[in-house]
Amino acid sequence: MTMKYFNISEPNEALRPVLQDKIDNLNKPKGSLGRLEELALQIGLVQQTTEPVLRHPCHLLFGADHGIEREGVSVSPREITWQQMLNFSRGGGGVNMFCRQHGFELFLVDMGVDYDLNGVPGILNRKIRRGTHDFLHEAAMTPEEADRCLDTGAQMVTECQARGCNVIALGEMGIGNTSPSSVWMHLLTGMPLEQCVGAGAGLDTEGIRHKYKVLEASVRQFRALHPGLPEAGAFSPAQTELVMRHFGGYEMVAAIGAMLRAAELHMVILVDGFIMTACMLLATRICPAVRSYAVFCHEGDEAGHRRMLEALHARGLLRLGLRLGEGTGALCAWPLLESAIRMLNEMNNFENAHITKYF
Amino acid sequence: MTMKYFNISEPNEALRPVLQDKIDNLNKPKGSLGRLEELALQIGLVQQTTEPVLRHPCHLLFGADHGIEREGVSVSPREITWQQMLNFSRGGGGVNMFCRQHGFELFLVDMGVDYDLNGVPGILNRKIRRGTHDFLHEAAMTPEEADRCLDTGAQMVTECQARGCNVIALGEMGIGNTSPSSVWMHLLTGMPLEQCVGAGAGLDTEGIRHKYKVLEASVRQFRALHPGLPEAGAFSPAQTELVMRHFGGYEMVAAIGAMLRAAELHMVILVDGFIMTACMLLATRICPAVRSYAVFCHEGDEAGHRRMLEALHARGLLRLGLRLGEGTGALCAWPLLESAIRMLNEMNNFENAHITKYF
Repeated sequence: MTMKYFNISEPNEALRPVLQDKIDNLNKPKGSLGRLEELALQIGLVQQTTEPVLRHPCHLLFGADHGIEREGVSVSPREITWQQMLNFSRGGGGVNMFCRQHGFELFLVDMGVDYDLNGVPGILNRKIRRGTHDFLHEAAMTPEEADRCLDTGAQMVTECQARGCNVIALGEMGIGNTSPSSVWMHLLTGMPLEQCVGAGAGLDTEGIRHKYKVLEASVRQFRALHPGLPEAGAFSPAQTELVMRHFGGYEMVAAIGAMLRAAELHMVILVDGFIMTACMLLATRICPAVRSYAVFCHEGDEAGHRRMLEALHARGLLRLGLRLGEGTGALCAWPLLESAIRMLNEMNNFENAHITKYF
Repeated sequence: MTMKYFNISEPNEALRPVLQDKIDNLNKPKGSLGRLEELALQIGLVQQTTEPVLRHPCHLLFGADHGIEREGVSVSPREITWQQMLNFSRGGGGVNMFCRQHGFELFLVDMGVDYDLNGVPGILNRKIRRGTHDFLHEAAMTPEEADRCLDTGAQMVTECQARGCNVIALGEMGIGNTSPSSVWMHLLTGMPLEQCVGAGAGLDTEGIRHKYKVLEASVRQFRALHPGLPEAGAFSPAQTELVMRHFGGYEMVAAIGAMLRAAELHMVILVDGFIMTACMLLATRICPAVRSYAVFCHEGDEAGHRRMLEALHARGLLRLGLRLGEGTGALCAWPLLESAIRMLNEMNNFENAHITKYF
């Protein structure tokens, strides 16, 4: 499987005025439910109905390690990845409590954690390798590995749909994965690399400078390996796939496969913070229609995340200063989707509420 | 009852470092749950425990009409107030669906709606009069009426607590009530009146100018009636009570009584948008300790609301562009309080998660 085999269509726009009319006739000043109205419109379009229903929400958490972590780009040690995956499998992590709170079925998927998690109850073994290669020196993964990641992500979503799910949240665990995200952002948007590099889970100024230097050198090495690439921001879909493979983490490419399949199946996709937004950005550069299915759930404090959202013409629903990852920002936004749906399905319109239509 | 009879104490600060230490040892980078961590700390302090519990949330919606509405300061006609109260009593409003979604018990209280709602199932009759006086010409209410409003709000909270409630949300229905809110804001903070006046439920530029002129004339008239008042922003508690009575709506003063009693009983108070924030502002100017119990749930798009929150050293949890009133912004923030509590009660710390402490 490669990305071009995903068959994603835009939602039919014919329903938009019908949905807008329904929303405008609910008993409230026009537009007064703000972003909930936008959400209702989007979900109605995705589901092609004026009475949308959100069923059996699932959360896919992909975990993997990163070769680039060896270059000291992260404040947290590599072992945190497997320790947290085990912790999640026992229900003690941030992602677990929010899944319980909001009724999400959680799937933990080992895509390439640098530890033997085989046989751990609650962790699916889809391991490609124990961590990607170090992209300072070579491609993070092979084309075949990338395809397996896309395929695994897609299959997970297909399985979720078979269980009745029509809305999917995505999260990740992988120490070092803000680094590939920053490089993707730089190469795909054309923004200067320094505007794409942030503190990750807590680097200081010195640490950020080191990270920037490592990533700058990595991009130089990438261009040396592939002479003739266009300038950042002007990559073709095929070149974008190259960028994906050269820098990406297994967990990130799996998330991209999940996003693409979810869009193919007309499911709502809850996008978390910086890393998942980078995955969505990459996905849109190959299949632009995926954007219509994406709800951007959280806008982090890092300037880079805001700029990436702007590049996607998106704003995050929440701004809570979260930077835990795991998909926690996506899960925290869930009740707002439920509110939007309730508005469409439960709120009286002016006529049946016997209210003078007002503004 | 007057405001000085509320006996509100600050939460004991001795627990703060204990709570902070618990939060910092949960298995996540320090501070990575952002505002949820702030919330957890606040609620822990309010309840004086490291294992807080939110019980039987109640939503009090006070409704009343405003004399000032006669001056054309609102885009919506006065009849909307009673029509919406009836709609709420039948379960068809915005507030109803969010109360159902989040499990709030809803109380609809007629404090002064200009319509006979007596005997309507689901609406408590605490009517003072059918609307306040027009504060362009005279005081909106008498001291006795203000006391009855405070008392009613306080009694409602006492009843909620008797039902097991320890967290209270407040909302309002009252066409015209952004006008008293703007005047309160101006007189209590000292910000120029024009920075305190906004579009309400949807005024255009011309409408906002008219509203400003009416409010400016009202403030002038107020000062003429009470010579010797200090400049805006420098009012004593007794003068603040005068401001409350002269401009306030019955539903707003009831909400203030509810806030003060809730703080007295160490309950968490969910503050909605512009109007409820104005009520909290006024309450803090008489009983500053009430601030410690307040969670500011929604930050509206109007510049005035942001400035008022700044005056309270607060930021809203959500920014969803809501401007419906009814307390809907407070209700939408509820799941974040639940998330904060879960974090404290369910998330593993580094030790029992077997994770290397990281940053």
